[in-house]
Amino acid sequence: MKLYNYFRSSASFRVRIALELKGLAYDYVPVHLVKGEHKQPQYAAMSPSLLVPALQLDTGEHLGQSMAIIEYLDETHPQPPLLPRDPLARARVRALAQLIACEIHPLNNLRVLKYLVRDLKVEEEAKNAWYRHWVRDGLEAFERELAQLPAGTYCFGDTPTLADCCLVPQIFNGRRFDVDFDGLPRTMAAFDACMALPAFQRAQPSSCPDAEG
Amino acid sequence: MKLYNYFRSSASFRVRIALELKGLAYDYVPVHLVKGEHKQPQYAAMSPSLLVPALQLDTGEHLGQSMAIIEYLDETHPQPPLLPRDPLARARVRALAQLIACEIHPLNNLRVLKYLVRDLKVEEEAKNAWYRHWVRDGLEAFERELAQLPAGTYCFGDTPTLADCCLVPQIFNGRRFDVDFDGLPRTMAAFDACMALPAFQRAQPSSCPDAEG
Repeated sequence: MKLYNYFRSSASFRVRIALELKGLAYDYVPVHLVKGEHKQPQYAAMSPSLLVPALQLDTGEHLGQSMAIIEYLDETHPQPPLLPRDPLARARVRALAQLIACEIHPLNNLRVLKYLVRDLKVEEEAKNAWYRHWVRDGLEAFERELAQLPAGTYCFGDTPTLADCCLVPQIFNGRRFDVDFDGLPRTMAAFDACMALPAFQRAQPSSCPDAEG
Repeated sequence: MKLYNYFRSSASFRVRIALELKGLAYDYVPVHLVKGEHKQPQYAAMSPSLLVPALQLDTGEHLGQSMAIIEYLDETHPQPPLLPRDPLARARVRALAQLIACEIHPLNNLRVLKYLVRDLKVEEEAKNAWYRHWVRDGLEAFERELAQLPAGTYCFGDTPTLADCCLVPQIFNGRRFDVDFDGLPRTMAAFDACMALPAFQRAQPSSCPDAEG
């Protein structure tokens, strides 16, 4: 398999974690978002939505959207599972993942920040406040959801799931913008537990071949 | 089952479509977002993330996040299926759904539009341009993804899927803001095919008990 991705992309990071947790080997193909490499014809032919990551299977097929890719990996390489077996538990894990992937991250990705600055003439400090607002607001909601679940090492239970694959990159992104993580005990305990695992360490931006300072 | 939702909420509309496609009876409980009813303590106890929709099961459990709810319904009430059986096909449907639920809709929901106006002092016309930009940009990406798939009546194949549950509410929302839908032939053909079905008709905002003009 080949993963077309960018070291700093949160959605790319999610898929790298899943690949590492499952022990699946892959070729890392860097796509430099800031240089606009995702908009070049060669990449567009593979990912018409011009988004990273894209996973190229050994059959030549391409898959997009990080959560869809992770569920595909989980269905085709079931061990270790990234979703529980019980439908209600699966719904809880998916809801946690979507709370990050549908409520927090979309507001803060590169193209949105660019629109704020270029089209809405938002100043640097107001842009950063926007960023921090949505991360903090979203993580507070995440924490309240976790508080209603049984205690566990990770977001849901005692093994990492799709929810952890989404949480960890969001915390990394939040750190870059100095988000305040105080008062989020369950969330940050899950993050710390994840980062103690080699799979998460190997997937992190600073471990990527295209990492920049 | 009880569905806590709002007639105009796109995420609520997705779940109503799934319930109707599966022929599942449910009680409709309106939660008025504009009046802030989702922030009241009674609702917060059920949905700590303060989002609609929330599905209350007959066991008393609550589920949040529309795509997670729909997958739960599909796993517990498999007929008619809203996802194909083949893992690659499932990934394609999920990616289409996420292209809407993670790339378009999050930028245009009520709390984001409020932040633009209240915190960033964005004028009405610039706010509407923001709205149209993300819907149009996202639907063009959606159309390019559809163009790479085999022809079908709906977004993926000849039966409605999770992708259609997400597409149709997004088109309704776009219409409210006069988005230009020209040049999106596959997307709009899937929309029209969906709206010819009674399930989509019954789920639409104007059919809801809390509908306003």
